[in-house]
Amino acid sequence: MSVSQYSLILTAVDFSAQSENLIARALAMRDLCGARLCLLHVVEYLPMAYSGDLVLPEGFDLEQELLDVASRQMATLGERLGVPAGDCHVEIGNTGHTILRVAEELGADLILVGSHGRHGLAVLLGSTARSVLNGAHCDVLAVRVPED
Amino acid sequence: MSVSQYSLILTAVDFSAQSENLIARALAMRDLCGARLCLLHVVEYLPMAYSGDLVLPEGFDLEQELLDVASRQMATLGERLGVPAGDCHVEIGNTGHTILRVAEELGADLILVGSHGRHGLAVLLGSTARSVLNGAHCDVLAVRVPED
Repeated sequence: MSVSQYSLILTAVDFSAQSENLIARALAMRDLCGARLCLLHVVEYLPMAYSGDLVLPEGFDLEQELLDVASRQMATLGERLGVPAGDCHVEIGNTGHTILRVAEELGADLILVGSHGRHGLAVLLGSTARSVLNGAHCDVLAVRVPED
Repeated sequence: MSVSQYSLILTAVDFSAQSENLIARALAMRDLCGARLCLLHVVEYLPMAYSGDLVLPEGFDLEQELLDVASRQMATLGERLGVPAGDCHVEIGNTGHTILRVAEELGADLILVGSHGRHGLAVLLGSTARSVLNGAHCDVLAVRVPED
């Protein structure tokens, strides 16, 4: 890793209005460092406790439907930010673990995650941010995002 | 806070050899953003459990001695990095709380703290990093520093 600048920045996005601050920061860091920016959205597994009670229409694949919706949102976001489709990732799984896995696979040297100002990172992003911060093998920038 | 760049970066330093990585990152961020860089070293209170058992020479002020040593190290570091004396802070107290207080007082929009790659931030920096991340009202960059 160059000590002077980052070369591959992975930003975890959730498509919420609140994450515009995080996106603006990601773009600024990309431009400042001349880095490659990759986006990642993680569709969380439905908790088993719920999914057992869900009555879904025959032939309806909820997981695939969630992935499809997220992929369409990601495509729109990537186009708006000028991020090539190949650098826009949608995955299904545990958010924290998936961010770390994708960061390793891509060789990211900086991970950007959102944090909420009033409650702080650990409370609002909960186990996600904690596991990213605990497990990351690269730098992590926690970006303050506004409250709802 | 400008969304495009940081204007005041507070970096918590401990004078260890391992923190050279953190310092290099702080300098790079300062230069990239054209920001003002402030340094902070916190002398932790001696745990009361220890200090009750310490037998100190008459007239010896351990707290003041620790502050003096830290201030000399900070002066050397500030000179090396081209950080004006007025932006080099040495405080005594709880590290996490003190970082947050000084960040607020200075109006920092980015706090840099060191994290260890193998164990992750929360384990090695322990309560310090956690309280900074939980309590910060600005962005926090956790910079990976090498193991001993």
